[in-house]
Amino acid sequence: GVAPAVQAQTPAIRWRLASSFPKALDTIYGGAEVFARKIKEMSGGRFEISVHAAGELMPALGVVDGVQSGTTEIAHTAPYYFFGKNEAFAIGGAIPFGMNSRQMTAWMNHGHGRKLVNEFYAAYNIISFQGGNTGAQMGGWYRKEIKSPADIKGLKFRVGGFAGRVIERMGGVPQNIPGGEIYQALEKGTIDAAEWIGPYDDQKLGLGKVAPFYHYPGWWEGGLEVSFYVNNKAYEALPAEYKAMIDAASGYAHVDMQAKYDAFNPTALKQIAASGVKVLPFPTTVLQASYKAAMEVYAELDQKNPQWKKIYDDYRKFQRDQLFWFRVNEARFDGFMQSIKGF
Amino acid sequence: GVAPAVQAQTPAIRWRLASSFPKALDTIYGGAEVFARKIKEMSGGRFEISVHAAGELMPALGVVDGVQSGTTEIAHTAPYYFFGKNEAFAIGGAIPFGMNSRQMTAWMNHGHGRKLVNEFYAAYNIISFQGGNTGAQMGGWYRKEIKSPADIKGLKFRVGGFAGRVIERMGGVPQNIPGGEIYQALEKGTIDAAEWIGPYDDQKLGLGKVAPFYHYPGWWEGGLEVSFYVNNKAYEALPAEYKAMIDAASGYAHVDMQAKYDAFNPTALKQIAASGVKVLPFPTTVLQASYKAAMEVYAELDQKNPQWKKIYDDYRKFQRDQLFWFRVNEARFDGFMQSIKGF
Repeated sequence: GVAPAVQAQTPAIRWRLASSFPKALDTIYGGAEVFARKIKEMSGGRFEISVHAAGELMPALGVVDGVQSGTTEIAHTAPYYFFGKNEAFAIGGAIPFGMNSRQMTAWMNHGHGRKLVNEFYAAYNIISFQGGNTGAQMGGWYRKEIKSPADIKGLKFRVGGFAGRVIERMGGVPQNIPGGEIYQALEKGTIDAAEWIGPYDDQKLGLGKVAPFYHYPGWWEGGLEVSFYVNNKAYEALPAEYKAMIDAASGYAHVDMQAKYDAFNPTALKQIAASGVKVLPFPTTVLQASYKAAMEVYAELDQKNPQWKKIYDDYRKFQRDQLFWFRVNEARFDGFMQSIKGF
Repeated sequence: GVAPAVQAQTPAIRWRLASSFPKALDTIYGGAEVFARKIKEMSGGRFEISVHAAGELMPALGVVDGVQSGTTEIAHTAPYYFFGKNEAFAIGGAIPFGMNSRQMTAWMNHGHGRKLVNEFYAAYNIISFQGGNTGAQMGGWYRKEIKSPADIKGLKFRVGGFAGRVIERMGGVPQNIPGGEIYQALEKGTIDAAEWIGPYDDQKLGLGKVAPFYHYPGWWEGGLEVSFYVNNKAYEALPAEYKAMIDAASGYAHVDMQAKYDAFNPTALKQIAASGVKVLPFPTTVLQASYKAAMEVYAELDQKNPQWKKIYDDYRKFQRDQLFWFRVNEARFDGFMQSIKGF
């Protein structure tokens, strides 16, 4: 086939992207840069998206309002930040004892996930796209070792997003503190513990000096899916080529972020352990008590919030099937590999 | 900024893609369709790649020759098919007791993996891109239950690619039979066992009727990474926009395939189990003997094949770090989730 001799050139378009993350996090902030760079390359520079760190255009937690109003065309964020607007936001990111990275991607891309969250987001003028995953996060940094569920009672714990609801139910006191202020708060004892992301990102904060117990896993984020939120009118105004570029670049950025976390976390964790930090699993009793608290929170939400219930019912069913499958095949393979002495 | 009023239109380009897979596999064959469709959309139809099933343009195992000679510009294939040319091919796909899906992606995208395999592929005029992953595959269908390593001796086992080297060392007899002929060979007893992919794909072959023991995991493919192989001259002739589209669309197709397998496998496995097939883990003694045999094969290759050694040294080091990290955090999270009764 031969292309028509004269064909309309795709238009020059400039968008601004508001990230909820600071530039220092080359992993999660970097996901938006990977996305924007690829779109610029594919469009020959005609579709350009400038990436702005949290606070540059609007506060980290202002990006849903920003996209909803059309102040910015696109944001890159963690959906659970917005659970205060509606708890259903959290399901699109990560919920306590939720799905792991691959399972979440499967639900979004080949279950009903993307369809269900986009129906919900419509009231906020948002269309969402996959924007990366952190993998299972660590459980955070503690001034004292966590030995039983009783140690959560009264714990002043810096924890991001929706997980605070479960921490509260366990008697803990969730704290909302920006990343840059965590070190000082732990040093002074204003807080007792803080979670951030995983070894590679956490290492930059140097928290081991002031909170030397590093517990795992972060049961509230078994696989945080990050999202691109696009204003629906801005999206609909795009030519078909650019719509497809957003879709493809979001997939490209999605796989890139998880790969980066997986590649960079092992070395960071080794260095953290070598620095004298005690890297310890949460006791099973703590996981069990946390799971029980989470299920109580979900049972209440099922009664109170129909949008939560609609999405969570589908999520839960999908998760049940995923656990069945991963238990059989992936777990047997991974478990054997992890058991090999002196690999 | 404003685009120049007159700008050269990107050229109309048509490529043919030779897949090594049959159309019946909407999962793994479908990966090339997902890739080609996205490129067509992004380019406004100016860069069009027609997808051809195994046998249409060339045989399934002829695609490296096809790309090398420029007969076809691009192929979609499983690298281990070509271990007969050089065992190093296998490392770019899956090797026995190798990395799982996420670990492989991490090595390729943020370790040295892609760089090392592309250096190796240069002699074949190939540049490679990520093209999907199946996740851990099942261990296949057996006429008799496998209870110990002795049961592998003399076993006529249909198994794809490089894994046959390890099966041979264990006293088995690897067989090379196309998917469409497996059922009959098992029914007649010409072979004793056959592996294919995983529940969703396997179910289509109906092997449970003739080989009712379905073992797991497929320790020779803990995560098969599928590749796009592009002829280097065809690639270099592309405008920068189309090069970027290949990169982005390959990432998009990569994440899409794994999501599809994860979403579709659970239901298929339930149906297979409900049909009376016995779904059984390989005994640990069998995994241990298989691992020992694989390590012997690798030790020999390290001596004989410098291209294998160069890539495998890096792969092994990366894998060791991945096992350390996944053992700590991902395994603790997944393990707890999988232990919950009545989820």
